[in-house]
Amino acid sequence: MRASRRGSVDPFIVMDVLEAARAAEAAGRRIVHMEIGQPSTPAPAAARAALARAMEEGALGYTVSLGLPALRARIARLYGEWYGVDLDPARVVVTAGSSGAFVLAFTALFDAGEKVALGEPGYPSYRQILKALSLQPVGIPTRLEDRYQPRPEDIPDDVAGLIVASPANPSGTMLSKPALGALIAEAHARDIAFVSDEIYHGLHYEGRAVSALEVSDDVYVINSFSKYFSMTGWRVGWMVVPPDHVRLVERLAQNMFICPPHASQIAALAALDCGEELEGNRAVYAENRRLMLEGLPKAGFTRIAPPDGAFYIYADVSAMTDDSRALAAEILEGAGVAVTPGLDFDPVRGTRTLRFSYAGATADIREGLERLARFMATRS
Amino acid sequence: MRASRRGSVDPFIVMDVLEAARAAEAAGRRIVHMEIGQPSTPAPAAARAALARAMEEGALGYTVSLGLPALRARIARLYGEWYGVDLDPARVVVTAGSSGAFVLAFTALFDAGEKVALGEPGYPSYRQILKALSLQPVGIPTRLEDRYQPRPEDIPDDVAGLIVASPANPSGTMLSKPALGALIAEAHARDIAFVSDEIYHGLHYEGRAVSALEVSDDVYVINSFSKYFSMTGWRVGWMVVPPDHVRLVERLAQNMFICPPHASQIAALAALDCGEELEGNRAVYAENRRLMLEGLPKAGFTRIAPPDGAFYIYADVSAMTDDSRALAAEILEGAGVAVTPGLDFDPVRGTRTLRFSYAGATADIREGLERLARFMATRS
Repeated sequence: MRASRRGSVDPFIVMDVLEAARAAEAAGRRIVHMEIGQPSTPAPAAARAALARAMEEGALGYTVSLGLPALRARIARLYGEWYGVDLDPARVVVTAGSSGAFVLAFTALFDAGEKVALGEPGYPSYRQILKALSLQPVGIPTRLEDRYQPRPEDIPDDVAGLIVASPANPSGTMLSKPALGALIAEAHARDIAFVSDEIYHGLHYEGRAVSALEVSDDVYVINSFSKYFSMTGWRVGWMVVPPDHVRLVERLAQNMFICPPHASQIAALAALDCGEELEGNRAVYAENRRLMLEGLPKAGFTRIAPPDGAFYIYADVSAMTDDSRALAAEILEGAGVAVTPGLDFDPVRGTRTLRFSYAGATADIREGLERLARFMATRS
Repeated sequence: MRASRRGSVDPFIVMDVLEAARAAEAAGRRIVHMEIGQPSTPAPAAARAALARAMEEGALGYTVSLGLPALRARIARLYGEWYGVDLDPARVVVTAGSSGAFVLAFTALFDAGEKVALGEPGYPSYRQILKALSLQPVGIPTRLEDRYQPRPEDIPDDVAGLIVASPANPSGTMLSKPALGALIAEAHARDIAFVSDEIYHGLHYEGRAVSALEVSDDVYVINSFSKYFSMTGWRVGWMVVPPDHVRLVERLAQNMFICPPHASQIAALAALDCGEELEGNRAVYAENRRLMLEGLPKAGFTRIAPPDGAFYIYADVSAMTDDSRALAAEILEGAGVAVTPGLDFDPVRGTRTLRFSYAGATADIREGLERLARFMATRS
């Protein structure tokens, strides 16, 4: 059958790692997973309990497209709690994960053929979703000395939008308020739509992350229950849009999604009041991060991005290889540790980088670091 | 902030009805709902129980993008049970409702600017999703004497795709196997991608519906757990694609959705074995349909489409009005019954049609029909 050109998006390189790790495990080997981008913890207990109750009480039919009003109100309140921002719940759009939010945002903002800029390294799906929507991603090569974040003067000519993430994936770096403000100011001056990916907010270890909403109301902010709230598979997230975009996004959501999953919305509403359990998860990541910052240099990974947030460490391995894919395969084979080659995040310079995730259990992180140190010592 | 042209899709006319009905209820009036397009029943009990168990057993993280392997296998088996079709589970793609399936299908099949044909009257979101993806919907005016389904010779020149639904929304009509086969043959002869919307399968009252997979493997078939399986708000559906399209759709799904909601997939898997409860729901619809076929003509609605399946009856009201929107408002005001004007389904001829849904409880259907008969008698 016929197929579109825009449908042929790039495969994920990490899938080869996942498949090799699965094969090794099927053959009886124990693999430590440092390639995974999701918490190993479940949704908070009270969130699951709330859903168990709701399932016995009502039919869980369609919700309105923008999401349960109580959930939108509670999300708005979170902006007061986290950032001291007074947010109108009418501007909150509950979405089918941040994935659904990106599809809605890009459709609402950009027409076929337009260019959208994004920092490299970055989340690979930005690029692929843009292509699938007949848009042109334009990578901005960023520098380690800039925390792998773009500078205002890096924004290319003739782009219609800019996507920025803080904390970023794969680097875990954050933008300061002045740096974020400078990017937003430059975008506004040039009529470029500013999309702020804030899905790792809540997962910081020193200073907190700054929301684009602290700088301007004229931005799209995207967040998710997947990471801090530990609800990846539930596919529920949200977006805050400028007041004059609410109706536009609502109509698109009605048609493209009908509504976000009702069951997930109920669990998400309860998760917003599970601070103690979630802060417990964060304490585990903080300990894992401490171990990584101690253990990775011992294994020879010394050139790393400032690990401000999320649960990733991005390492420049150019001193060891110019083929990160081969190095990742070698580490999996030799050390039994799965790591992600940088190629998915940076199609050019990712040949010389690796991403390590510390989202796993602390005992696994400890063991993974020991294995890495042992293996890398034999290698050099 | 800037906005795209493709993002400004049409509003739903029915939203005005819903809002007026809500306002009437807030003012203390009792309204009978014949505008609703979803079951009032919850997900099957065993489906909810399966999820309650799973929530205590594991983290419900991301699943693979194509869906839980056990669910894909069980869906494939359904094609044996319902149609006697032997289907490879590898061709089954679990999606975020049929909405997610349409987004994936249109993206995989069509490039920006291409034309896609669809019968009118039809499901309004086809048109709006196509527009949002920078595609051009081309309506085919269908005839009551053809059960409001397109003829092969109606397919316009230079279209890249054709969407057909059987049973259809809003008409409830089905295509016979020869009629479906003739449409598919014409599409294949002209290299037009054929997309078969089968989301109302299982909800038939005389003969069963025919799947496009009984005719050809070279089609996209879209189905959902929303209607027969009574799981609208769960946002889980599926798509069967040609073998050579699986990898293409998988890559798009990885990037645009990551995966369908895990919790919903678990409930859906259990729902597939809830035949007794689901057949009970269908018996209610069958009785409702019987009442409608008796009661609507008594209220003056005599010119209706053959009500083969789904839970809708589409009435030509051209003898009463050329403003279906005003008539729906009058019926809501005078009879306290909410019905849907045809305009969402057919932008041109929908000024002279109404859609009645019988998805509600039987007592409500009975009361609604009595109210309609009383009110329409005073009106004529």
